[in-house]
Amino acid sequence: MSRLHESQDPDFRRLNSSLEFDRRLWRQDIAQSRAHVRMLAQRGVVQSADRDALLAGLDAVEQELSEDRFPFDAEDEDIHTAIERRVTEIAGTAGKRLHTARSRNDQVATDVAMYTRERARQARRLLSALMAALLARAEEHADWPLPGYTHLQRAQPVYLGHHLLAYFWMFARDRSRFAFAERQASRLPLGAGALAGVNFDTDRMAVARELGFEELVVNSIDAVSGRDFVLGYLSAAATCATHLSRLGAELVLWSSSEFGFCELPDAWSSGSSIMPQKKNPDAAELLRAKAPRIVAHLAALHGVLHGLPLAYNKDLQEDALPARAHERGG
Amino acid sequence: MSRLHESQDPDFRRLNSSLEFDRRLWRQDIAQSRAHVRMLAQRGVVQSADRDALLAGLDAVEQELSEDRFPFDAEDEDIHTAIERRVTEIAGTAGKRLHTARSRNDQVATDVAMYTRERARQARRLLSALMAALLARAEEHADWPLPGYTHLQRAQPVYLGHHLLAYFWMFARDRSRFAFAERQASRLPLGAGALAGVNFDTDRMAVARELGFEELVVNSIDAVSGRDFVLGYLSAAATCATHLSRLGAELVLWSSSEFGFCELPDAWSSGSSIMPQKKNPDAAELLRAKAPRIVAHLAALHGVLHGLPLAYNKDLQEDALPARAHERGG
Amino acid sequence: MSRLHESQDPDFRRLNSSLEFDRRLWRQDIAQSRAHVRMLAQRGVVQSADRDALLAGLDAVEQELSEDRFPFDAEDEDIHTAIERRVTEIAGTAGKRLHTARSRNDQVATDVAMYTRERARQARRLLSALMAALLARAEEHADWPLPGYTHLQRAQPVYLGHHLLAYFWMFARDRSRFAFAERQASRLPLGAGALAGVNFDTDRMAVARELGFEELVVNSIDAVSGRDFVLGYLSAAATCATHLSRLGAELVLWSSSEFGFCELPDAWSSGSSIMPQKKNPDAAELLRAKAPRIVAHLAALHGVLHGLPLAYNKDLQEDALPARAHERGG
Amino acid sequence: MSRLHESQDPDFRRLNSSLEFDRRLWRQDIAQSRAHVRMLAQRGVVQSADRDALLAGLDAVEQELSEDRFPFDAEDEDIHTAIERRVTEIAGTAGKRLHTARSRNDQVATDVAMYTRERARQARRLLSALMAALLARAEEHADWPLPGYTHLQRAQPVYLGHHLLAYFWMFARDRSRFAFAERQASRLPLGAGALAGVNFDTDRMAVARELGFEELVVNSIDAVSGRDFVLGYLSAAATCATHLSRLGAELVLWSSSEFGFCELPDAWSSGSSIMPQKKNPDAAELLRAKAPRIVAHLAALHGVLHGLPLAYNKDLQEDALPARAHERGG
Repeated sequence: MSRLHESQDPDFRRLNSSLEFDRRLWRQDIAQSRAHVRMLAQRGVVQSADRDALLAGLDAVEQELSEDRFPFDAEDEDIHTAIERRVTEIAGTAGKRLHTARSRNDQVATDVAMYTRERARQARRLLSALMAALLARAEEHADWPLPGYTHLQRAQPVYLGHHLLAYFWMFARDRSRFAFAERQASRLPLGAGALAGVNFDTDRMAVARELGFEELVVNSIDAVSGRDFVLGYLSAAATCATHLSRLGAELVLWSSSEFGFCELPDAWSSGSSIMPQKKNPDAAELLRAKAPRIVAHLAALHGVLHGLPLAYNKDLQEDALPARAHERGG
Repeated sequence: MSRLHESQDPDFRRLNSSLEFDRRLWRQDIAQSRAHVRMLAQRGVVQSADRDALLAGLDAVEQELSEDRFPFDAEDEDIHTAIERRVTEIAGTAGKRLHTARSRNDQVATDVAMYTRERARQARRLLSALMAALLARAEEHADWPLPGYTHLQRAQPVYLGHHLLAYFWMFARDRSRFAFAERQASRLPLGAGALAGVNFDTDRMAVARELGFEELVVNSIDAVSGRDFVLGYLSAAATCATHLSRLGAELVLWSSSEFGFCELPDAWSSGSSIMPQKKNPDAAELLRAKAPRIVAHLAALHGVLHGLPLAYNKDLQEDALPARAHERGG
Repeated sequence: MSRLHESQDPDFRRLNSSLEFDRRLWRQDIAQSRAHVRMLAQRGVVQSADRDALLAGLDAVEQELSEDRFPFDAEDEDIHTAIERRVTEIAGTAGKRLHTARSRNDQVATDVAMYTRERARQARRLLSALMAALLARAEEHADWPLPGYTHLQRAQPVYLGHHLLAYFWMFARDRSRFAFAERQASRLPLGAGALAGVNFDTDRMAVARELGFEELVVNSIDAVSGRDFVLGYLSAAATCATHLSRLGAELVLWSSSEFGFCELPDAWSSGSSIMPQKKNPDAAELLRAKAPRIVAHLAALHGVLHGLPLAYNKDLQEDALPARAHERGG
Repeated sequence: MSRLHESQDPDFRRLNSSLEFDRRLWRQDIAQSRAHVRMLAQRGVVQSADRDALLAGLDAVEQELSEDRFPFDAEDEDIHTAIERRVTEIAGTAGKRLHTARSRNDQVATDVAMYTRERARQARRLLSALMAALLARAEEHADWPLPGYTHLQRAQPVYLGHHLLAYFWMFARDRSRFAFAERQASRLPLGAGALAGVNFDTDRMAVARELGFEELVVNSIDAVSGRDFVLGYLSAAATCATHLSRLGAELVLWSSSEFGFCELPDAWSSGSSIMPQKKNPDAAELLRAKAPRIVAHLAALHGVLHGLPLAYNKDLQEDALPARAHERGG
């Protein structure tokens, strides 16, 4: 693959593998490869027989990954090379075409953009459901009196419905934040190659259309250097998580015996063997507790990008972790 | 002012004063008061004689503040009460009307929203100028060859113009981030009162129009509880600062004798008495160095809002510092 | 287990399970249980037959966990209840004694303290090895001239050995930071119960001695409320990671063709298929890239603890993540 | 001063001036200069007449600075050059000797170390006073029953004294954290010169003794490159601030009418004109609200140091801000 004659040290290989970070991108990577191969065939860069072999190979790999039986190899450096290796094992020499007119640098940027877009879209859907739930609860309690607080001191009476709608509006704004983040992630990096474009007469707009991107990243160096669209997503997520933490904190407060404004259902409480009278609002506490982690992911990615020279650097691998930890821990 | 009979402890008064934080809001506070007073007169809540006295008093106070000769008093708790006290000294009893149909809770939220909007607008202007400068430099160097780097290893040749345009596009996106932040700050909180609205037949849209707000914050509890529009501004500022840090870091690298890609003008370098051959890129280093501070301001405001019960809490005073430190230190 | 009559909602159970966070504590949990059981038998709280059954059960569970064949159950809320359940399945009713004179609140605090102590000790060992390596390299290059830089401008000549020893001293200080963190984690929380102590005549010092703690946490509320010893560990780790990031950044710089101060071995470089001349310093880039994540973990735990009322809250589950992500990603 | 022929651009000079950051170091800078001058005279590097002129000049400058009538000049780049310029104006050509065997790089590192040490010492003093106050309150309420909480649910009864002592122990640990930070800042950087030592036969230990440093920074590159002792101070401050935020949050909770566990004195409460029944716990809210800012300063300095090549870089100017903002805003 390069001028390096000596084989890699196992410790280096283990450190260098980004599979732990990018394995979760396999769906995006396969969808991207399909679009890429179809475009290459359309432009005559790849024969239609090779295209068909590649698409069949990608189907087989998708099946293996979705059934959790994909044979990862110790030499797989990342999800892109793992899939390419496996497609080549399945589809034969056609598999080598998968990397034509593409570098891992623009490939991973594209996967991450797709992933980010999908997460932003999902966040919007979940927020819509949450807003509907809040609206329903607010309507049910439209005229329930509640002390309104400032400084946690009773200030003026309000209605519970009115209080709940304060959250409705916060989440409405958060939804528009995720919509903005989604648009920021809707520019296709693919076609930038390693950093200077590719030597083939490709059709980037065709790929963009198939993958649902609205625009192209115009500048090839820009396309592989940054992850500001991930910062955008994490900014929206952090603000939303902070709003959720306030809701969680109020539910904890309200379910205390001193406030007694709500009683949690048994099905959503934990108990205590030593103190059988207790009904602990664990879910509300966790709602409160998650925000600092999301904010930290945002700060960490800023830290990774801080002062980083253009174009691609291995440091960018760290873009993936925040999203993943968010996904798994959240 | 309240049931508190004992006078405040001097230590408490000193701690509690937010003047250090909100003094910078005086322009917004006066503009807001003018719009508020005009609207109150329009609705018949305030007599036109009182309105005129108040407007004259506000003019006088503005003059004092802009000439840095406003007589602050040890008992002034914040910029709002300082201005109201002073207007009353100047305008007589009419001054008391300034607080009609308004609480410091919605008043400060409105000041901060105005301030944020103005800062976002200013950032967009500065980014446009920076983009124009980059474009001019890129055109001048459209065909200057430059090694393109990945992993800081020479990868493929590019043109310097192309490299500079990578930054052009980053800042273009940042400009749209500030535009989004500006829109998020374009909802008027005023009218929310302490948290439950006001007992006067006011015209919030008239105030919004005069102050350049596009919409109203619909929910009064929401209006005084949060500062997510500041988070939005700081998110945009943090991403932009991270981009600037990359530009600064490249200028430092390029002006090293090893890279030697650029030479700084004497007028923009610092020297050394011990090492007369040196030409230090201090400005580029500072461009690199500022980003972590902006990111930290963003994280700090998230921290302040984390788990905070509705509605207004004194903690929100801390919203001001990030913007101010940014302003002064930047 | 409590007054809750309705069974837990599966969604709640999934959210509420902290197994993902505390599974890694199994070694500490078993060691703690052994010491606890021995002490209880010593004090006559548990019969020696029960003690033996419990110790045998703990041995069996340890075997299962170390061979990755422990039968986790969907109802296991955390590692403590999972182990207790399994010991009871194996040891019969004696298993119920495992929870005597202990609450999950002091139990998890103890596990985390042990884990933190061990990580700090391991960090010291690794730093000693790194310092030895730096010293050896410095001696080999004691008289190799190197430009000394300020502002990345050549300033005064130094020796490479001298430059490498700058890092030696940074890591020496970091080692003393981990030693301090280790001492901070050397106070035993066990015995605090849920928050108010336990109703048995236990011998906390015996448990402390067996588990290698130097002191007891004196105040029971304090013992279950905080995780400042984790903050201490993460502070040391963050400073050390920032020092490592500087070393990584210099290696990246030095291996550029412009600086050319070092050449990476093939076995520790990655190549490029498109650009066969390249030798990428991925390991050095990752050394640089990890610091922001560690700093973010530190900030996140501060965020979780911010404003949290005493004593135990479910939020404290989030203490575990930083250490774990550090462990796995680092 | 250097080979730079063109004079500095006023914009550059304004950006480059670090006076806003290091002005607060004037006391340390003067004390350092006194010790430095005495040592130089002792070693015969400076004549005793020059020493006396310099010491008299430093006295005069100290007087001017302490009376806030020091004549700053637009060309003063930092506090060190400002003081040196002024001493030269007062003491004549002897003033030039002030910079002998010293660089601004080791000079500022020494000032910051002294400043950090003093702040850490002050924090320890304040914590001792706070611990004494908590102990006194705990003794007064040794047998006052209080519900003990977990998950903010009443769990087991405790005594108020016991609860207060939980904070006593947190602050005791914080005090030992500041003691550790103080020791970390007790190594003298002076003597490192710009980065490679100085060409005079100086006596670093004499300076260390006069300034109260326990040891020397051994490696000259290390001495001017880092600020990890500031990270150490900020780590201690962040943990302490997080503990204070918990105390503040509990006071807010306890002074709510729902909890009603304490009543704030009038002298330490703020009221409301609209809601005369209110007694707002502003001081407790601010105690809660400050922690995120301190944590952010710590994270920001980590960010500044991240990936920074040795030795001195202008970025290090940013070390000063956190301490200063902490000082003024706290």
